[in-house]
Amino acid sequence: PKSTLNTIRPDVQIGADLCLFWLKIAARLAVRGHGFVEPNPMVGCVIVDAKKNMVGWGYHRKIGGAHAEVEALKRAGAKARGATAIVTLEPCAHFGRTPPCVDALKNAGVACVVYGCADPNPDAAGGAEKLRAHGIETHLLECEETRELNAPFVKRVRTGLPWVMAKWAQTVDGCVATRDYDSKWISCDRSRRMVHRERGRVDAILTGIGTVMHDDPQLTAREVRLRRNAIRVVIDPELALPLSAALVQTARQYKTVVATLAKSFSERSEHRRALGDLGVGCMKQHSDFRGLLAALRKEYGVSTVLVEAGGGLTGELLKENVIDEAWVFVGPKVLGDREAIHPARGLSPLSMHDSISVRLLSVRRRDQDALLHYRFEEPKRAGSIGNASVAG
Amino acid sequence: PKSTLNTIRPDVQIGADLCLFWLKIAARLAVRGHGFVEPNPMVGCVIVDAKKNMVGWGYHRKIGGAHAEVEALKRAGAKARGATAIVTLEPCAHFGRTPPCVDALKNAGVACVVYGCADPNPDAAGGAEKLRAHGIETHLLECEETRELNAPFVKRVRTGLPWVMAKWAQTVDGCVATRDYDSKWISCDRSRRMVHRERGRVDAILTGIGTVMHDDPQLTAREVRLRRNAIRVVIDPELALPLSAALVQTARQYKTVVATLAKSFSERSEHRRALGDLGVGCMKQHSDFRGLLAALRKEYGVSTVLVEAGGGLTGELLKENVIDEAWVFVGPKVLGDREAIHPARGLSPLSMHDSISVRLLSVRRRDQDALLHYRFEEPKRAGSIGNASVAG
Repeated sequence: PKSTLNTIRPDVQIGADLCLFWLKIAARLAVRGHGFVEPNPMVGCVIVDAKKNMVGWGYHRKIGGAHAEVEALKRAGAKARGATAIVTLEPCAHFGRTPPCVDALKNAGVACVVYGCADPNPDAAGGAEKLRAHGIETHLLECEETRELNAPFVKRVRTGLPWVMAKWAQTVDGCVATRDYDSKWISCDRSRRMVHRERGRVDAILTGIGTVMHDDPQLTAREVRLRRNAIRVVIDPELALPLSAALVQTARQYKTVVATLAKSFSERSEHRRALGDLGVGCMKQHSDFRGLLAALRKEYGVSTVLVEAGGGLTGELLKENVIDEAWVFVGPKVLGDREAIHPARGLSPLSMHDSISVRLLSVRRRDQDALLHYRFEEPKRAGSIGNASVAG
Repeated sequence: PKSTLNTIRPDVQIGADLCLFWLKIAARLAVRGHGFVEPNPMVGCVIVDAKKNMVGWGYHRKIGGAHAEVEALKRAGAKARGATAIVTLEPCAHFGRTPPCVDALKNAGVACVVYGCADPNPDAAGGAEKLRAHGIETHLLECEETRELNAPFVKRVRTGLPWVMAKWAQTVDGCVATRDYDSKWISCDRSRRMVHRERGRVDAILTGIGTVMHDDPQLTAREVRLRRNAIRVVIDPELALPLSAALVQTARQYKTVVATLAKSFSERSEHRRALGDLGVGCMKQHSDFRGLLAALRKEYGVSTVLVEAGGGLTGELLKENVIDEAWVFVGPKVLGDREAIHPARGLSPLSMHDSISVRLLSVRRRDQDALLHYRFEEPKRAGSIGNASVAG
C-alpha cells in the first residue's frame, strides 16, 4: 500500500520519512489491542528523541486501561523531554476512563506530536489544538496503515454500526462447498486456527440458517485464548432453527440469538419459546441488515461482527453494502463444477463495470493456503450492482 | 517450499547448507533461459571456491548456445581450479550441439560437482559417473526449487508431451466473466503484461471455440519482446471458427491451427478450405487431449503450451489431467452471481476428498491483483474426480 506524506511539514524534528516509518510501527503495535479494546479505538504510540532513537513505545491494551501515549511515556521516562511522540490517532483531550493524554504529553515535556488520524469522536477531539495551545508542535501524517487501522473506529463513531468482517474458505476455482455441500476441509489447520482466534476477538458471529442446516457449526473459538465472548447470531427469517442444532444445544454456554421476521416471531411463538427454554434469544429481524446491525450494537453492545455464512446470506449482505472487510482463504483444491457452491449469490451484474470493487490489503501464504485480505470501498458503490433481485 | 538435504554428504567442501543456498540461486538463474532454450532444459550454474567465494555463474541462454557450466567456467577462469560447481541438472556427458560439460569441468580443474537432478535424458546421462571416473567428487542435492525448475524437461523426456500451463483471471469469488460473458477487465495492466510476456515465451497458445466466439481474442504477445513465436491453437470440434475471427484475420502473420473432429474435418471441408485460404491450418482433433498434445509436439515441435480458455475447455483438460501448472490472477472485484462464468466446469465431485489437489508454488501481489501459482500433483489423481460427465 502506498503511503502519503501529504500533510506533514518537512521541517519536523526527526524528518518526515522517519515519522512515517515509526507511524507504521505504531500501527502494528496498535493491532495488538484487537479484541481487548473495542469499542475503543486501537491505538499505538512510539516516542523518538532528537537523536532519532526510539525511547518509548506503547499501545492501548485493554478497555479502561492506559492509553497508548501513557504507556509509551512511561517507558520513555525522562527521555521523553524534547522528543517526538508518534501516535496513530489524535491524542484525547477529555477525561474518559483515564485522564486526557494531552496533559500527559505536556507534563512529560514532549516537543512534537505526529498523529495519523484526527479523532472522529467529538467528545474526545480537539487534542491537537490543545497541544498547540501548550506550545507543542503537531502534525497530521496520513498513511494507508493508519487509515486501515482506524477505519472500524471511524465507522462506529460516524454511523453507530459495528464493523463487519466476512470470512470464507474457497477452492482455487472459487467454490466454498461441493454440490453436495461438503466443505471439509478446504483450508489448512493454520488457517482454521486463525479463524478461531478471530472468533475469540469479535463481539458477534453471524451466520445464516442455510449454513446451520448444511454444516451444523458451533461457531465457537476453540483451542485459542479468548479475548471476549462472541454472541452467535443466526439469520433465520422463517424461524426454522432446529432444537437439535449444535448452536442451540450449546446456547447455555455461548450466547445465541436468532433473528427472524416479525411474522415468524409471532406465528412460530411455540418454537420460539422452546428455543428460549434452551437459552436461545430471539430478535425481530429488521427490514434491512443495517437495522439489524444497529440493533446488535444497541441491544448487545456489538462493535465487531464476523460473518461466517453461505452464499445466500453473504450475497444479501453484499447487496446491502454492509460488509467492510473480507478474509478469503484459498485452499489448494480445484472442483471444476458449475453446480458447486460459490461464496456469494443473488447479484446479477451484466458487465464487469457493475461488479463490486474491493481493495486488496494483503496477500499471504499459510502452508498451502493463500490468504487474501480485502477492504470494501467506502463510499460503497450503491446502485451499481446491476439488476439485483431479492434472493432467498 | 521446504528443501531437502537428503542426498548430500556432510563433508562436502563448502558445506551442505551453502551448496543448497547456491543451488537455489542457480535455479533462479536458470529460469532466465525460459523461452529461449526449450526443448532443452533450463540450467543454471554457480562456481564457489574453497574459501566459499562465488567465482563464476552462468545459465543456458539459448538453444545451441553454451551450457550453463561452460558459461560459469568462463567467468571463473583460473579460479575454477579446486572449486565446487553447483548446477541445477547433472552435467551432460555427450556431444550434442556443444561438447560435453563433463570434459569442460574436468579441464577447468573443478574438484567437486553438486547437481540438483539426474539427467532424465538417456542420451545425455551418465555425467556424474564420468566425473567420478575423472576423480571429481559428485553429489546429488535435491530441493523443491530444482524439482520445479526441471519438471517441464523431465516430463518432455519421459512422456514426449509438452508442458501445459493454464492461466486465467478471476474475481475474488471465482468468476472469469459475468453472465453476459463480460471479462474486461478483471486483472490489472501489470498482470496482463505478464501474460503477454509468457505468450512470447511458449510454443503454443491453446484456446476453445467458446472463448473465440465470446471474446474474439488475438492471443498475440503485444508490447513485449518476443523470445519465440507461438502457434495459436483453437479447439473447435464442429469447425465453427468464423472467417471474421481476429485469429483467422491475423493468421497470415501469426501461425494459427484449428483442431477439429475427423467428422467435421470431412463434412465441413469447404469451410476448412476457406480457413486454409486465410492461412489457418487444420488438424484432426485426437480422441483425447494427450493425443492432441503429442501431435502438437510431433508436427509443430511444441514444448510448452499456454492454455487461455474458458470453463468448458479448462474443465475437459482438468478431467484428462493434462494441466501441469496454473497461474491464477485474482482481481479486486466481486460479482456475487451464481450464473456468472467460472474458470472450470464439467466435473462433479461430491466430496472435497474427490477434488483435484494442487500444490501452491507461490503467492504474489501485483498492484491490486493476487497472483497464485500452482502445480498439479504428479502422479495425478486419475479416477478421483467423481462421476464426471463429458461436458461440451
